[in-house]
Order: sequence, then C-alpha cells, then structure tokens
Amino acid sequence: MSDVKRVKPQNPKGTRDFLPVEVAKRNYIFDTIKSVFYKYGFEQIETPALERLETLTGKYGDEGDKLLFKILNSGDFLKDVPKDELANANSQATIKYISEKGLRYDLTVPLARYVVQNQDKLPFPFKRFHIGLVWRADRPQKGRYQEFYQCDADVIGSTSLINEVELTMIYAEVFKLLNINATIRINNRKILEALAEINDCSTKLTDITVIIDKCDKIGFEGVERELKNLALTDNQVSEILSLLQTENLESLKNPFAASPTGLKGVDETEEVIRAAKSGNVKFDITLARGLNYYTGIIWEVICNNVKIGSIASGGRYDNLTEMFGGQNMSGVGISFGIERMYDVMEELNLFPDTILKGVKVLFVPRDNSADNYCLNVVQQLRQNGVSAEIFTGNVKKQKQFAYAEAKNITYIIEIGANEMDSNQFRLRNVKEKKEEGAGFTLQNLISKLQ
Amino acid sequence: MSDVKRVKPQNPKGTRDFLPVEVAKRNYIFDTIKSVFYKYGFEQIETPALERLETLTGKYGDEGDKLLFKILNSGDFLKDVPKDELANANSQATIKYISEKGLRYDLTVPLARYVVQNQDKLPFPFKRFHIGLVWRADRPQKGRYQEFYQCDADVIGSTSLINEVELTMIYAEVFKLLNINATIRINNRKILEALAEINDCSTKLTDITVIIDKCDKIGFEGVERELKNLALTDNQVSEILSLLQTENLESLKNPFAASPTGLKGVDETEEVIRAAKSGNVKFDITLARGLNYYTGIIWEVICNNVKIGSIASGGRYDNLTEMFGGQNMSGVGISFGIERMYDVMEELNLFPDTILKGVKVLFVPRDNSADNYCLNVVQQLRQNGVSAEIFTGNVKKQKQFAYAEAKNITYIIEIGANEMDSNQFRLRNVKEKKEEGAGFTLQNLISKLQ
Repeated sequence: MSDVKRVKPQNPKGTRDFLPVEVAKRNYIFDTIKSVFYKYGFEQIETPALERLETLTGKYGDEGDKLLFKILNSGDFLKDVPKDELANANSQATIKYISEKGLRYDLTVPLARYVVQNQDKLPFPFKRFHIGLVWRADRPQKGRYQEFYQCDADVIGSTSLINEVELTMIYAEVFKLLNINATIRINNRKILEALAEINDCSTKLTDITVIIDKCDKIGFEGVERELKNLALTDNQVSEILSLLQTENLESLKNPFAASPTGLKGVDETEEVIRAAKSGNVKFDITLARGLNYYTGIIWEVICNNVKIGSIASGGRYDNLTEMFGGQNMSGVGISFGIERMYDVMEELNLFPDTILKGVKVLFVPRDNSADNYCLNVVQQLRQNGVSAEIFTGNVKKQKQFAYAEAKNITYIIEIGANEMDSNQFRLRNVKEKKEEGAGFTLQNLISKLQ
Repeated sequence: MSDVKRVKPQNPKGTRDFLPVEVAKRNYIFDTIKSVFYKYGFEQIETPALERLETLTGKYGDEGDKLLFKILNSGDFLKDVPKDELANANSQATIKYISEKGLRYDLTVPLARYVVQNQDKLPFPFKRFHIGLVWRADRPQKGRYQEFYQCDADVIGSTSLINEVELTMIYAEVFKLLNINATIRINNRKILEALAEINDCSTKLTDITVIIDKCDKIGFEGVERELKNLALTDNQVSEILSLLQTENLESLKNPFAASPTGLKGVDETEEVIRAAKSGNVKFDITLARGLNYYTGIIWEVICNNVKIGSIASGGRYDNLTEMFGGQNMSGVGISFGIERMYDVMEELNLFPDTILKGVKVLFVPRDNSADNYCLNVVQQLRQNGVSAEIFTGNVKKQKQFAYAEAKNITYIIEIGANEMDSNQFRLRNVKEKKEEGAGFTLQNLISKLQ
C-alpha cells in the first residue's frame, strides 16, 4: 500500500467516529431499551440500509425527497440518459436514469415494505422493534447529523387500545431505567379533529394542526395570530384558543357532546392515562405533531430538566401498508430519539462510571522473558471467566497506568523474575492508585476476581 | 399517504430483510464473539457508513474501485461537470464532479483513517473490534451480497507476538463456543518470502504467492503448471513444489538455514502454535492469502465438515496508517466471516432451539372486558422480572397458539370471567401442547416463571 497517495484523514461532515467510551454509552442506551422491548414481547428485525428509490420516493414530501441519499448506478451509468438532458445539465431529470437505489430515510417506510413483502412469514399482530442507521442529506449542525440511529417499536395489525397502554408503559419504564426525568405528553388526533369539527372548520384541520404544533415556540398569542391568518372568524379563533387552554380531559366532554369523534378521543386518552399508571403521563391538547398520518393517540416525550425538544415520539396511524398494496392494517408505534437521549444523559452525567467494559486485570511483563508466563496465567483466568489482558506496548510504567485507566481496567499485576519464581502476585488497584495486596496465588486471584 | 402511487414491495437485489428468528441467530453469533473480544481486552468502536471517496479510492485495486457504492451529491449535482464530458456521456470522467462520498467497502481502511484521525484520544497498543455493515457493488449470487456484515478485531501499534497468540486463542475460543468444528490454518509471510529467496526468485514473490494461494483449488499439478508459466527453471519449480509438501515446521529449518527471514518465520509460527495450546491450529505452508500487505503470521479458518471456503482470516501487516500520513505502526488482526459462519451453523443445525427470546407467558383475554385485568397482571409479572405479553389480535384460538409458537412463547393463559373472579390461572405449555396445571395464583405464577 505504500504507493498510495496520502490523503487527509477526515470523516464526511455530518458523520461521526465513535470512541470506545462513546460506543459503550450508546450500547448502554440500546441495551436498556432492548431489554424492555423483549419483556413486552417485541421482536427485533432488520431491513437493508439500501432501498429501491421507487420504495422511498414520494413518502416524505418534496423536501424529504431532496434529502434522500441516492446511490450512483454501477458501470457506465450515463449511457441511458437522454442526450438533451445531459446537454442541458438537467440534474433533476437525470436522476432516474443514473440512480436506482438510495439509503433509507427512516425505519417506517422500510417497515411498511417489509410487512407487505414478508406477511406470510410474520405472526400478527406483528410486534417488532428495529434499531438502525438512517441517512438524511440535511445541512449538518450541532446535534443534527446526516447519519444517525433510529430506534422504533411498532404493533401492526391490531386496533386494541392495549397496545397504546403498553407502549406508554414502555416509555415510562425505559426513562425510569435510564434515570431520565421525563414527561410523556399525550394527545389524540381525534380530539384535534373534534376541535376543528365543532368550530365548523374541518376543511382547515391540517393548517390548524400545524399552527397548534408550534404553540410551544410561538405561544398562544402566536397561535391566535396565525389562526386569524387562516381567515377564521374571531369567534372561531377564540373558541379554539379557549379549548387549547384545557388541562383536563373531563372538561372536554361538554364542548364535545355533539362530536362522537371527539368523545371517542377523550375516552381513549383517559383510558390510556388511567391504565398506564405512571405519574409521568400528561394530557396536552396542544400536542399536535404535524404528521398528517396519525389517527389516534399521539405521544411526545420531553426531558424535564434539559431544554432539547422532544426525546421520543409516536402515535397510531392507519394504512401504513397501503402504499405497497397491502391490506388496510392499523399500526401504532413509538420511537426513541437516541441521539438526543445520549446528549441529555451526557449533560446530566447519567451514565454509570463503569460504562467501559475494561478487563479485570492487566498483566505487564517486565520484559519478553515473562511473555509466556503471562500468557499462561491470563488464559487460566479467562477459562475461569475472568477477563484479562497483557500489556504488549513498549513504554514507561506511567504510560502503562494511563493505558489501564483509559480502558477502565481494575487491577495491574507486573510479572518479573520474582513473580515467576514464587508464583505470587502483587495487585495494584488502578483507580485508587494503591497496592491492594501482595502474595496472591493464581487460585486466590481467581476467587477474588471471578 | 393514500394519494401515494403504489409500488411493488421489493428490497434491492443483493440485500436482505431479516426475520426475527434470523436476527436472533445473527445476534447469537455477534454476542458470542463480542463476549470473547471483551474478555481479551478489545474495545468496540464505530465509524460512519459513509466515507469520503478520497478516503476509499485506490485502496482496493482497480476492481475494488469499481465495486464502491458512490453517493450522488445533493442538489444540482451536474452543475460543475465540464460540458464536453456530459456531451460525451463520459461516466468515468464525470464521477469526481458528481460524487464526493461512498459507502465503506470494508472496516480496515476506515480503521486506518480512524486511528490517524483520533490517535490523541486512543490508548496504544490500540485493541479494537468493530462489527458493521459494508457494501460492495458485486454481482449478487448465492451467499454473496451487496450489503453484509464484517466483524474484525485488530491490535495497532504493537509488534509483540503475544498478540498473534491471543488472536489465535480468540479464534479457538469462539469456534468452540459456537460448536463449529474448525481448523485454524496458520502460515507466515516470511516463510513464503524465504521460499522464493532460497530459490533465487524473490522478484516473482507476488506471482508465486498468488499461485500457491490457489493450491486448494488447482492441486499441486496445477501449481506446477502455473509456476512453469512464470518462466522459472525446472529446478526452481521442483524445489518450490517439494517445500510446499512440508507438513511440519521443524523440517524447514534445514532448507532455510541461510535465510534469517525464513528462520524467523519458522520461529514465530512455532511459537504461536505452541503458546496457543489448541489442538485445532495447523501449520499449512500452502496458505498464502493473495493479499500483499501481510508481513508476518497469516490465518485462515475452515470448517471441517462443511465445504464453504474460509470462514475467518487475518494476518499481520505493516504501515496500515501510512496512507493517511500516520507514523509507521504495525498491526495484526483477525476477521470473522459472519455470513458464512451463519450458513455453516444453519446447515449443521447448531443454533439453540430457544434462540428467539419469546416472552414467558402470553395472556389471551376472552373478550374486551378482560383487557384491564390482563394489563394489571402482566404489569405485575414484568415488575417481577417476568416477560409477558397480551394477545391483541382478533382471531380464533388456533391462531393464538400459532402466534405463541411462532414467537417461542412458553405458556398461554386465557383470561375470562372465571379467572377474573377467582384470580386463579390455568397454564398451558405451548411447545408440549398440554395443560401444565390450574389454580395458579399470581404469586405462584411469579415464583414459577421468575
């Protein structure tokens, strides 16, 4: 490889290298969530990172289509492009001739494809989780990456409200296990529909939802201003605003008396909050989540002591599989915002100190003559379930300690002529920087470290 | 989403959807390997799937460059392409203007970039493992995919032979844990060098290595024929062929007496085999692995009872980081061929029956009136560490059993008026299709299933 041109070592903007301690922290989050998913009966699946562009295009709006990473076809990719499109350097018109595949943009559209394509092999209701990378050609900025993980659990093919209750419980359990002080905000698309319906403005539901969704940022005054821009009457605006101040579900039953949809929304939401039995679930009528495809319960989780936006979200949707010719199947799902959860836990110092799985003991041969002795001892330790490694660098003692500290190794044992003669070891505690004791035989060591 | 054009659900050729049972089996392999890596002091890292093309190009030969998946730049990607290249539809000349990023082709070049870029933050010798997807635009065929996992462990920055011994031990331990009957073939690049050196044909070393590497396929006669085509003398050919029949290292010491390189190669290899203390390690002088960058020990692992080629391989190499301007660092690493190992284990039926982590018990409410009762009971089970789920489908009893079987759930409990009145449950064993007992209280159940 020595004739290779030297290039600057640099990862693409918007992507990240992860150091061992960062991978350990991320795995801690993933493993916690996975353990809860399994406990509730969710099974892990995987879909490819690559999808056909046909599968991805048109599912995320025009803006989303622009953010899809497209893969250049192999070989002579320009050969089928019409000459005039090339002559005009018409990028948009050219894409379909030169790219057939793209990187997945989320895990939801691949799920829809997967369920339809593999439906004969899946148990229904299908409860799956999926943790995987997704890619978006967004402008990179602090906390926003072009390549990041999503972590979703969905139930496909069941309309039972039990699923909403259980997914709420999963949220509560995961955030409790991770020590994240979170509020699980909950609302129902049906309540938002009723809000428009009883004010005779159902045709403007989408616009109204988009405005309500911004309530956090623009406040009620902002919502009022923008609703007026929709050409609603003053009366409609003030009715909607008054309902948006509602803090408890009970008080919606009166205004919704004539709306079966609204009452159903209130009932469902009451039931989920009651059955989930968590003090952290709060009804929030201003929670709208701009996504039009939600049809029932909507969730959004925020962290109570870090301002970072939502750290998880989800909802019930219909017809997920319709776009791939599947039968009408209702689905409900939640998503954990891994990247933000990581930032929250880092900021609040919530990761355990011992997150790096360092070995129990590092053996340091004083010189090469101790190599074989060390190999023998570490292998006996490992056979007894004790993790161990041998320092194979060629540096000063201080650096050996720095190495052990960096890898979160508990003990150091030096091996020289004395140790090989006596078969007794001196144990130094790395973190406390002091000797833990001398005269350990191999058997003592195994007992102590197992 | 209902206005979206319907498309056929289909994953790209060369890629795969994984069903829950397949993910469970793959995780079983990954988790086994990871546990051994950790026990030996290797730390997990991650690098992005996307790399700058500059980083990838020129590292895998011309053939490899063609197999790189290239990402189309965002926006008006044609705007900087010279007009005449477009007019001539010159695909190759166009690439550099329209694509800056690609998908990683292996985990080794990203490791080199990572080590140079992050060297101030890493402990040396740096022992890392990495399990991740790589992509190659190869023609898909049975057992060959465009998107697949690699699983590598490397030690960077240490020339100690302890590393070779430990990596050999890792191979032995992993294959033992997975119950794969494997032979760890071992050779040394220095032995191959000496083989050419003592026959005065060192200038043809690369060609000779490539031919020896094919010995498995073309036999000694084939090797003889091809060596002759290299314009070696009959004497040279017969000397090389005679050495290639060598089965033990000891007998190389005589012919290599005048070659310090050869003797060093023999010594190193003897030492690794001796110290690794595994009956499955075998010296094989015909093991050449065409890769020119190996400089010391070479490994290749084969399965003794399935003809599938090598299921793992590795070696020592120098100057890994030089291509990114790093200092000269020696490295040694092993790679597990996850995809083939999976096929071997499937063929030999080596996966445990209980590979799917199904919950302990499935509750089936006879009708909606039992929903809340079920929610209550499962939540108490879960709080006591027992995994459980509620069946939320709307189908016949037979299908409920099929559901439990498909998900590897151990027990089923139906909940109707009787159970809710008495708080006593009838436990049905799913696999054995029989009743395990009636009259279980919740407390009994927790004790039994914990």
